[in-house]
Amino acid sequence: MTKALISSYKQLLEKTKNITTLHSAAAILHWDMETMMPPKGIKMRSLQLAMLSRIGHKMSTAPEIGRLLQETINHPDYSSLDLVHKRNLYLIKKSYDEQTKLPEELVVETSKQQAITINMWKKAKATKDFAKFKPELEKLFELKKQAAEILMQVKETATPYDALVDIFEPKMSSEAISKVFKKLREGLVLLLKKCETAQKQPDTSILERPVPVEPQQKIGKLLAEFIGYDVTSGESGGRIDETEHPFTTGYYDDVRITTHYYPHRFASSIFSILHEGGHAIYEQNLKPEWMFQPVGDACSMGFHESQSRFVENIIGRSHEFWTYFLPALKKLTGNVLSDVTVDDFVHAINHVQSSKIRVEADEVTYGLHVIIRFNLEQDLFADKISIDELPQVWNKNYNKYLGVTIKDDSEGVMQDTHWASGLYGYFPSYALGNIYSGQLLACMDTQLQGWRDQIARGEFGTVKQWLNGNVHRHGNLYSPPELIKTITGKELSVKPFIDYLNNKYSQLYQF
Amino acid sequence: MTKALISSYKQLLEKTKNITTLHSAAAILHWDMETMMPPKGIKMRSLQLAMLSRIGHKMSTAPEIGRLLQETINHPDYSSLDLVHKRNLYLIKKSYDEQTKLPEELVVETSKQQAITINMWKKAKATKDFAKFKPELEKLFELKKQAAEILMQVKETATPYDALVDIFEPKMSSEAISKVFKKLREGLVLLLKKCETAQKQPDTSILERPVPVEPQQKIGKLLAEFIGYDVTSGESGGRIDETEHPFTTGYYDDVRITTHYYPHRFASSIFSILHEGGHAIYEQNLKPEWMFQPVGDACSMGFHESQSRFVENIIGRSHEFWTYFLPALKKLTGNVLSDVTVDDFVHAINHVQSSKIRVEADEVTYGLHVIIRFNLEQDLFADKISIDELPQVWNKNYNKYLGVTIKDDSEGVMQDTHWASGLYGYFPSYALGNIYSGQLLACMDTQLQGWRDQIARGEFGTVKQWLNGNVHRHGNLYSPPELIKTITGKELSVKPFIDYLNNKYSQLYQF
Repeated sequence: MTKALISSYKQLLEKTKNITTLHSAAAILHWDMETMMPPKGIKMRSLQLAMLSRIGHKMSTAPEIGRLLQETINHPDYSSLDLVHKRNLYLIKKSYDEQTKLPEELVVETSKQQAITINMWKKAKATKDFAKFKPELEKLFELKKQAAEILMQVKETATPYDALVDIFEPKMSSEAISKVFKKLREGLVLLLKKCETAQKQPDTSILERPVPVEPQQKIGKLLAEFIGYDVTSGESGGRIDETEHPFTTGYYDDVRITTHYYPHRFASSIFSILHEGGHAIYEQNLKPEWMFQPVGDACSMGFHESQSRFVENIIGRSHEFWTYFLPALKKLTGNVLSDVTVDDFVHAINHVQSSKIRVEADEVTYGLHVIIRFNLEQDLFADKISIDELPQVWNKNYNKYLGVTIKDDSEGVMQDTHWASGLYGYFPSYALGNIYSGQLLACMDTQLQGWRDQIARGEFGTVKQWLNGNVHRHGNLYSPPELIKTITGKELSVKPFIDYLNNKYSQLYQF
Repeated sequence: MTKALISSYKQLLEKTKNITTLHSAAAILHWDMETMMPPKGIKMRSLQLAMLSRIGHKMSTAPEIGRLLQETINHPDYSSLDLVHKRNLYLIKKSYDEQTKLPEELVVETSKQQAITINMWKKAKATKDFAKFKPELEKLFELKKQAAEILMQVKETATPYDALVDIFEPKMSSEAISKVFKKLREGLVLLLKKCETAQKQPDTSILERPVPVEPQQKIGKLLAEFIGYDVTSGESGGRIDETEHPFTTGYYDDVRITTHYYPHRFASSIFSILHEGGHAIYEQNLKPEWMFQPVGDACSMGFHESQSRFVENIIGRSHEFWTYFLPALKKLTGNVLSDVTVDDFVHAINHVQSSKIRVEADEVTYGLHVIIRFNLEQDLFADKISIDELPQVWNKNYNKYLGVTIKDDSEGVMQDTHWASGLYGYFPSYALGNIYSGQLLACMDTQLQGWRDQIARGEFGTVKQWLNGNVHRHGNLYSPPELIKTITGKELSVKPFIDYLNNKYSQLYQF
């Protein structure tokens, strides 16, 4: 590499570092808004966030970045750069090309409208009043559609919707997703029928036994420690705070998760902490030397979900984990679970049942919730349905796919925050995460002998190391399709996930 | 007003709004750093804060502001503007003139060095090691000195130190402060002697009786409610969090205070909540229609301290307040204070004693702590003493003014965070706050009959309204000397404060 090439590259990284620093500041303001802020602070907070998004957009589209990109990518010695350099340049160029096409006013307007729409969603959900929510949702949808149409040109995707999917799952098209979702649906529907008609059914009433908040908090800390998300001491001192909708935020040295505690649904906080903890250990174990570089980010939302759902479901809902953890749970909850066996507990937490709420769905039906949303998003962006028709189409599809009758829009189309937050194209990542997690499990099974016995002994260290080395440390060096190939040697495939489910649930339900 | 003049004025206000919004975002990041952030997050946080200070400086010095100022101030119709318009323009011009003279690198370097110096101060204070702290303090002092010398030119103050004082207490010179501090000192020293030699002395051991953290938190919430800082419900939902050094932050709709809970010094959290609560109700009751305008800020740090010390001392350490509140305190602390009378309690919390630590000092000696610091700051900036000599001069003066012997620098020169935070010129505001509070009290006494009886009945509403109307709602419409004149009709005067103290302490100590 020549000096000039190195110099331009380093200048680009410095600019990226500034952009990342600004985004990390905005993430703290978002976290504070959800966890700490007095309600009245919302007006000032939306101004602060809109301002940071304006500044961020200005920084991301600075002509200086374009000039430096030209100097590096067209440099005669470009080919002498290594994989990391080239990936960084690719990601910087991708972001620059996309951001420069988005008008600043559209970016700022979207940021403002997001804050308004989320606020209205909270109120409308509480009062089951979609009509109140609709006008704000329509405004936000129109803004996202404008962005999608612009990004479609830059990204050269088949549809505007594909351009949004690419934000969360780069290099994945809705066509490719449709194909794998078709297979996923077939597998899930078959399995759902088997579970629902099985003789053996779990007693889920044990999960409704009362457990006060305080022991739940202690259980949460134990779980966090188990997976290696340090909440008790030390420099990293990750946080667990309370929000209605659990989430993870942060980057490298400052990662934070949230959960909720329901006294009559103690399992809810257990699995939300395992889920968010799976996200958290991904962020905490990115490669330190790549911090602030594009390559130092996580790979995609799908891979993020693969990690959260791996920890929540493949580990956290396994017989082995509860062999180890049930005694501790019994102790911390007093006498409330003393008569419960591991078998009964594990079956109860893996109860398969058609239901209305995605975040509470079991592993088998979860994918069907996602597929409904994916199809609706495609239809919305293809103008086949309107925001106005959304509730009725939602209810129809829930009846068709899951056989449930939606009573009101709060348990229907308004259950998720995503559309109110402008996150269109995000949902497929959840199901892709499940699919990746199945492939990762199959791969780990061949490489890590005896890992199930370790979990049963309460040791997560080896599994965590495997995830660290095979997923986390790769950061954003590869696109999702490349990463799954790099790790497993195979293309995206639904089979391992369906095999895992069949194997697990045939044992639980004895079919 | 012509259209052009209105348009330029509105554009200026819009720019000010953006600057204020950015500062309010930085304030949340500072608050999070002190209350919530995992320790490891400090590196990323200092990058975020340095970046916001760089952006803030760029925004404050945009040539566009200079151009708009010219257009408005030199406009033929300028004289047709009202008081609020003119004050806004004056404050925008003052900030612009000052900020544009400060080089961006000096601003950013100072922001970085502040984070480093505070961090080092914390470590050095814990290990009582001034030598460790000294090099970083010297660097920060040099940067502040550079700024002071630049600002002295713009502000046309008599000394560089005066230019720093003007940041916290506009229109106050160190010469004027010296004059009032001389009188203050005379009054305080005389009173101190009377208290120390009085026959009747309080039993302060009752304040060392153990009270666990949980009842202290409940007491704190009651106190906050009493003064009208709503922490329990409602939209404003102000916060009370825990930090070693209590502070208040925020603006209008999002104001937050912190406190600390010591199980063997329960009075500490009581008075820090009243003190910070006094700051908080100032910020929460600024004029809503002036939000984001320069005129919508608080008047000065001195006036801020007048409010915090009014609530903490004049109300919170009064016989009337404890007539009302002691029964509640007894109830919440179990049996621990059941034998204590109002008289004994009020005398104990008003114990006058020469001491080493400013933040724990009583009303009489407090001013002496401040005068020591004010004199040292003057000498530092006049090169009469060096940072190196600071500890020995500190110890000498504490012996001379307060008759105490400092054992180590942690209870000496390193006790306060101000110099480590680059806050030179801030200390005088504390004593000025006391002086203002005396004048406000004298004025309120003539205007608000029976207010003491109301406090004894647990009603703070009328006093709060008086403070709202006479202090808070004026925002930054007047400079401190103008504001005290506007409210009381009198110039700055030490007498009312000394009279208040004499009256109060002659009753308590029976001299």
